[in-house]
Amino acid sequence: MEICDTIKKAREAIARLRKGGGRVGLAPTMGALHEGHLSLVRAARKECDVVVVSIFVNPTQFGPAEDLERYPRTFDADCRACEAEGVDMVFAPAPEEMYPPGYETYVVEENLTGVLCGRSRPTHFRGVLTVVLKLFNIVKPDAAYFGQKDAQQAVVIKRMVSDLNLPVDIVTMPICREADGLAMSSRNSYLSTEERRDAVCLYEALCRARGMIAGGEKDARAIRAEMRKIIGRHDSARIDYVEIVDPRTLESVETISRDVLIPLAVYIGRTRLIDNICLTPEGREILC
Amino acid sequence: MEICDTIKKAREAIARLRKGGGRVGLAPTMGALHEGHLSLVRAARKECDVVVVSIFVNPTQFGPAEDLERYPRTFDADCRACEAEGVDMVFAPAPEEMYPPGYETYVVEENLTGVLCGRSRPTHFRGVLTVVLKLFNIVKPDAAYFGQKDAQQAVVIKRMVSDLNLPVDIVTMPICREADGLAMSSRNSYLSTEERRDAVCLYEALCRARGMIAGGEKDARAIRAEMRKIIGRHDSARIDYVEIVDPRTLESVETISRDVLIPLAVYIGRTRLIDNICLTPEGREILC
Repeated sequence: MEICDTIKKAREAIARLRKGGGRVGLAPTMGALHEGHLSLVRAARKECDVVVVSIFVNPTQFGPAEDLERYPRTFDADCRACEAEGVDMVFAPAPEEMYPPGYETYVVEENLTGVLCGRSRPTHFRGVLTVVLKLFNIVKPDAAYFGQKDAQQAVVIKRMVSDLNLPVDIVTMPICREADGLAMSSRNSYLSTEERRDAVCLYEALCRARGMIAGGEKDARAIRAEMRKIIGRHDSARIDYVEIVDPRTLESVETISRDVLIPLAVYIGRTRLIDNICLTPEGREILC
Repeated sequence: MEICDTIKKAREAIARLRKGGGRVGLAPTMGALHEGHLSLVRAARKECDVVVVSIFVNPTQFGPAEDLERYPRTFDADCRACEAEGVDMVFAPAPEEMYPPGYETYVVEENLTGVLCGRSRPTHFRGVLTVVLKLFNIVKPDAAYFGQKDAQQAVVIKRMVSDLNLPVDIVTMPICREADGLAMSSRNSYLSTEERRDAVCLYEALCRARGMIAGGEKDARAIRAEMRKIIGRHDSARIDYVEIVDPRTLESVETISRDVLIPLAVYIGRTRLIDNICLTPEGREILC
């Protein structure tokens, strides 16, 4: 497995690995790899000839008061995990390599990024889209793999790919969960023992929503109220948002008559966690 | 010569023309081709195996009160001119092909686009960068050719190419002028006979600046004042801006000690014209 820390070396390695043909798959990550990330890598390994994992804690997607400095960095363990999964190349640039002095070009999406996580994190998706476009331009993947856990991110990236005519297939993979249902996240490492126990309330709220919809509930407001109640029982929990939206437009849904995405963001202590579920009107879980 | 009106057909044509190798050159235009455009095409023809000209009056780079509807459209003549220059493919999409309903992703540059033309046309460069990136993603050129007449555009595009890691060489070609010095522009067709006569004042002002700098003048303020005086003599002329700036940062220069770009924008009647000159501190004209 090759490890490249500059754009130039990464391009050379990919040209070499590709050998003039072959499908390249990219799993963009911020490192601190868990089973969720590895599910992306495995899908890429299955479907592509060359598998690239990028490990880059992208400063432009963090707000000024967010956890850029604290974000877990476990580079050696990440490389061992990639090697074990048969990854061909890890691209791990320094921040200055991706954003040299005088950097000033960004990609913005003007509709889907003002809601949900975009409301609490106003520059987040600008940073995500910019780094993803840069990674696409460097790696030139045929397919890129993203987790369904970041549902809004997946929707926004698909929109960018379509709008900017990028020749990349976007593949989303299901959320990986701990035994009690907590969605895997590198940020779970911030939680105290007590907070870790409370954190399962995100999944409990989603399961309750699924149960209500499967039982015939059509009123989004009633479902949201139930979800808020479940989360509200936990002292350490503070809701950022609980929404029921159209999975493509991210617009609020009042009545459950088509597929819905139910995303939520909850602070557990100082740690902001997100989770979501995508459901048919009959309450069957789907990938959206 | 092939003429493609959809992205799909353009991609297929380029793959066919490229035959698995070969250098592709793109000259992006809004049509109404004149010698300035053809100089780009000739440079591309000389340096590349496959030459593509895009003809697209890009709506996103026009402001709401600007001349999108009026902009000259001479498609048949443009195609004949391209054919005569040995162009391999003309890409001429409809607006809906480039911006389908729900389009909402844009490229923004946050430093160089707030000055000069960006001040009078606040969404102009957002539209330019977005369409250029889309054209790059569709045509996948190895080199793209732009006119020095749109000096700020060339600087901003080079910035985007560097920031977003686009593997495209940006080539700029000198301004083509009419016999009396007026820079060629598709918008010159808007001018009445009298306005056409007045329009030469942009070039006269630039020549005066060159003469002053060649004569040892170092004070940018004195040069700008002279230029404004020359333009002010013409009844139909109204200055938008006359500046002396660093050719890379576009920051104002007070003392002529390094290469400078002298761009100006002047309304002649209702028609906004731009022109510029790039000079060494000794007053020698250069490409910047």
